[in-house]
Amino acid sequence: MEALANSARSRGSAVVAGLDPDPARLPREVREQRLPEARAVSEFCRGILEAVEPEVAAVKLQSAYFERLGPPGMEVYASLIEAARELELPVIADVKRGDIGPVAAAYAEAHLGVYGASCVTVNPYMGADAVLPFLEEVRRLGRGGGVFVLVATSNPSAEALQGSGEPPLFEAVAGLVAELGRGSGGYPDAGAVVGATRPEVGRRVRELLPRALFLVPGYGAQGGGGAEIRSLLDTAGRGVLVNSSRGIIYDHETAGGDYRSAAREAAREMRGELSAAGVRP
Amino acid sequence: MEALANSARSRGSAVVAGLDPDPARLPREVREQRLPEARAVSEFCRGILEAVEPEVAAVKLQSAYFERLGPPGMEVYASLIEAARELELPVIADVKRGDIGPVAAAYAEAHLGVYGASCVTVNPYMGADAVLPFLEEVRRLGRGGGVFVLVATSNPSAEALQGSGEPPLFEAVAGLVAELGRGSGGYPDAGAVVGATRPEVGRRVRELLPRALFLVPGYGAQGGGGAEIRSLLDTAGRGVLVNSSRGIIYDHETAGGDYRSAAREAAREMRGELSAAGVRP
Repeated sequence: MEALANSARSRGSAVVAGLDPDPARLPREVREQRLPEARAVSEFCRGILEAVEPEVAAVKLQSAYFERLGPPGMEVYASLIEAARELELPVIADVKRGDIGPVAAAYAEAHLGVYGASCVTVNPYMGADAVLPFLEEVRRLGRGGGVFVLVATSNPSAEALQGSGEPPLFEAVAGLVAELGRGSGGYPDAGAVVGATRPEVGRRVRELLPRALFLVPGYGAQGGGGAEIRSLLDTAGRGVLVNSSRGIIYDHETAGGDYRSAAREAAREMRGELSAAGVRP
Repeated sequence: MEALANSARSRGSAVVAGLDPDPARLPREVREQRLPEARAVSEFCRGILEAVEPEVAAVKLQSAYFERLGPPGMEVYASLIEAARELELPVIADVKRGDIGPVAAAYAEAHLGVYGASCVTVNPYMGADAVLPFLEEVRRLGRGGGVFVLVATSNPSAEALQGSGEPPLFEAVAGLVAELGRGSGGYPDAGAVVGATRPEVGRRVRELLPRALFLVPGYGAQGGGGAEIRSLLDTAGRGVLVNSSRGIIYDHETAGGDYRSAAREAAREMRGELSAAGVRP
């Protein structure tokens, strides 16, 4: 996780900008160019990337939106990861893959090796077999990347499964993250996805993972705010990176003006809110 | 699930051939053509597809192995789904995606709509929000496809999470499948992935889902056999499709000869074993 932690510190931001490009919501400036769909998405995402770069710790690419465009979408995915790397901005590939053994190793090689993301998100339903191959690829590459395991997500129906059992399932998954992560000094290479919408759950995950880096979705659009984030901080007021996708990339829809300026302004504002809430990058 | 069930009945086979192409294990006939990697994988998979077609109910494409080849791998993935459709062989896209809302909808559109698979596998860790968008896409397309939700998988570390809690997590997931699936007469459109390696778990899932179609991994290479499969059957001796990947596509490594003939022979043999075990397609 060092690449991510260093970027957050050097840029002074705990914000992650999520690229979830929906072709139906492209801004006027892009639509007017009448490009083929994948090229238009690429243009839009590059505009966002360059605009938010000074305000964010990292970008998160939601792979579903690129897969939906077919093979040309994966070309865009590849070129955006490359463009981010040129800006020295770490990329989190939000793939939430959840498979085992050689299949997990193939996914890890794909997204961390071939496409070149720094970090990935991983789904733990199949247990340690689903997480370890990703950590092994991170360690093999030696670029300071990491793996964020879904522990407690922010969506409404998550609670029914993740909160089931006694102790609840999410605690078993947090235990898995603690057991599998390695790291000397800084954050272990296994982190956790912990939603901003259920502070009591977040507090418990922090107790179980006092040293881990959390990737926090659910800020803004899904209802989490500064107060909810505070429950996730480590004892030094650090340890969280907070993602916003629609709140940043579609800010022009409400703010008006150029989509790039709107996105940068939205990221800057969020960075300020997090700072005001006591989040240290 | 009707497309799948019809194919199984008309071909008289409950076998699913899994395409997990590892470039390091391509047969000599393909290697000798000295093709670029993605083309070689395509050649190999097409050979397998045409060879096994008379012996199997469906093919399952493991998306990880195509993603690992970068964007050209997704071209191969697309062309194999098209080739299978031309052979009227349903395709299960083994993607195990697990995300929510609009992201899940984008994955569903990608694999069922854009790439055109009949069925997908889905990971339930994020709850109903992660499953429903796939079912909605299946229903929207109206092609008789379906969604296989991971319920109880066959890998060694699965038990630690899926068996945790009282009642265990896998029972909650089976409940979700029962609740979300729809269907008139035949199988509901939500099915379950249930491994062949823990018969007592399989028997319990069958009690909870008496009408559902199960996709069963773990046959052969992972240790499950005819006896384990029997515990998964419905009261009519039906309701399972059994996958074998390495046991079919790499059979030439032990059997020798042309890889296509070896794969067809392996599929035929497995079909016979299942039939002998009382599995009715």
